[in-house]
Amino acid sequence: MEIRSIVEKIKGLDSGLMEKAQVRLDNLTKPKGSLGRLEELAKQIVGIKGNSSPKIEKKFIITMAGDHGVTDEKISAYPREVTYQMVYNFLRGGAAINVLARHVGARVIVVDVGVAYDIEDAIGGSNYSYFISKKIDYGTKNMAKGPAMTYEQATSSIEAGISIVEELVSEGCDIIGTGDMGIGNTTASSAIISVICNVDPSIVTGYGTGLDEKGLARKVEVIKRAISVNKPDRNDAIDVLAKVGGYEIGGIAGVILGAAANRIPVVIDGFISGAAALIAYSIAPHSKNFMIASHCSVERGHKVVLNWLGLKPLLDFDMRLGEGTGATLGISIVEASVKILNEMATFGEAGVSEKETPNLIQ
Amino acid sequence: MEIRSIVEKIKGLDSGLMEKAQVRLDNLTKPKGSLGRLEELAKQIVGIKGNSSPKIEKKFIITMAGDHGVTDEKISAYPREVTYQMVYNFLRGGAAINVLARHVGARVIVVDVGVAYDIEDAIGGSNYSYFISKKIDYGTKNMAKGPAMTYEQATSSIEAGISIVEELVSEGCDIIGTGDMGIGNTTASSAIISVICNVDPSIVTGYGTGLDEKGLARKVEVIKRAISVNKPDRNDAIDVLAKVGGYEIGGIAGVILGAAANRIPVVIDGFISGAAALIAYSIAPHSKNFMIASHCSVERGHKVVLNWLGLKPLLDFDMRLGEGTGATLGISIVEASVKILNEMATFGEAGVSEKETPNLIQ
Repeated sequence: MEIRSIVEKIKGLDSGLMEKAQVRLDNLTKPKGSLGRLEELAKQIVGIKGNSSPKIEKKFIITMAGDHGVTDEKISAYPREVTYQMVYNFLRGGAAINVLARHVGARVIVVDVGVAYDIEDAIGGSNYSYFISKKIDYGTKNMAKGPAMTYEQATSSIEAGISIVEELVSEGCDIIGTGDMGIGNTTASSAIISVICNVDPSIVTGYGTGLDEKGLARKVEVIKRAISVNKPDRNDAIDVLAKVGGYEIGGIAGVILGAAANRIPVVIDGFISGAAALIAYSIAPHSKNFMIASHCSVERGHKVVLNWLGLKPLLDFDMRLGEGTGATLGISIVEASVKILNEMATFGEAGVSEKETPNLIQ
Repeated sequence: MEIRSIVEKIKGLDSGLMEKAQVRLDNLTKPKGSLGRLEELAKQIVGIKGNSSPKIEKKFIITMAGDHGVTDEKISAYPREVTYQMVYNFLRGGAAINVLARHVGARVIVVDVGVAYDIEDAIGGSNYSYFISKKIDYGTKNMAKGPAMTYEQATSSIEAGISIVEELVSEGCDIIGTGDMGIGNTTASSAIISVICNVDPSIVTGYGTGLDEKGLARKVEVIKRAISVNKPDRNDAIDVLAKVGGYEIGGIAGVILGAAANRIPVVIDGFISGAAALIAYSIAPHSKNFMIASHCSVERGHKVVLNWLGLKPLLDFDMRLGEGTGATLGISIVEASVKILNEMATFGEAGVSEKETPNLIQ
């Protein structure tokens, strides 16, 4: 589906139902507001789904994979082939995302949007993960020398994400978590954040998978060069994605837009997913209503993104892996929050006395 | 079992196995340390259990219930009968702790250590919760006028907690979360924290289940009076528990000591469990090694406890319910952490290239 028609479908939350959910939450056998963020989450999910007893049963992590031409500039601690090697690891079930997705009962959908390698014999996967090819190209071009991709390719990457969500929706889907795999993608993400949030690259660029100080300095310099060479237009997020982004980042932005258009809560993973959320938000500001920030990454630019979006992360676990690992833990917490709403007894049902009126206790 | 013999069983963590776990964590298919606190938790569990592949399968929440004579001073927003009403709610499965324990696959053990009411027809409970009576008395005495209980009763409450853990261990138990129910118990907890941490009651006393400013001022005044009347000895935690504590708080302290002695990880809930952890730590400092702080409560004294114990909470969700609700979420995260250790593939197993040596990437 075209981006424009998806954006038109993205609306606000159902505030009427959210007020009703608040009344129910206040009648459950606990002091008002005493479950804090769990109550806020439950209300948000009601507002997203437009359902006063929303269920979180069919859970998916969409892990978008792509390669980056900018790895030619030696900005990553790991070699480029790790991207496709990890895709196979995802499909065999041995990666962190597989372990954590199994733990929370979510399926992992591994998507090749731009891996620089043909993923073969990948159909099937395990019970908990499967593969979809939406390959646009064999990795981006080196953004330090010119645009990472064309405007059309950037658009296609977003549409790839949207189309996966549309397929999931037709089969039944209650919540989506975002994830990424792509050696070099913290470089692209830092560049996107620097441009859209209008801050110096040095403020939003970190050590990625494990650079040393010298490597970090080179990475910042490469990002500055990429921005200088390409002059991305910060008022056109697709232009930013095309010039200094990545296919998997566009894919995740599409997942977020597709989820928002279909009123499905979308749990945002860490730094890379944050850059993608920034693109989605720039394209469709209302998409923010459908986002839940799972955690705050160690990668230093992530706080800038979260502040820009006004999202408060659920967890602060010093994580920096990506893949959707943070999103899995967030999904489990969201699921807990709706169970509170749906399964707890009210004061009346349980025969529990309510709070005494102020003049009684004084 | 006597407290002294339990304390003698509490030792340090198995540092040799923890080093081996670190080696394995570093060989898993992810950048070193990139799962942050999940890796730290996994290592702690290995050190606790003395097992390089620890399992977290048999999960329990022990919710200790007791009443407080100090409610005569009108320091709670809820009437005293809510304690026993909530015990019945726990046993019927309608409380927040039931919902969240089911979500993480934990059983809830509801223990009457000092409820001011006979809990009848409580045997059985649901699949997910059952009842144990270890009743010591029908609530504590009003600490504003004299000791809450005798030294012997305080000792018995701790021993009650220990005995429950010993029974669980004999049946098989991988992790325990603590929980509490007792109208008036934030008052007792604030008093304990004030005495042991040697800070003014006003610093560690909060709104509890929902006092207004006038109620809070009265609560602080009552705590000051209780400390002044009873002169608890801060170097004798059992004396502090007896004079200004509560049966459920002693019970939780016993659960923590019993868990530590049996090398079982114990996930500490919020404010009340924090006061109990302070007592356990005062009695047996090594018990701290076995604690995991699940969350930071809204109740203002909780930060003082966490700092005193040197524990970093996993979650900061603005929760203030108790029952073990925070502990359930913590248990699920601990379980995730050991699955990472046990189930992820190594670089060698997955055929994924490792980090390049510094001279290659420079």
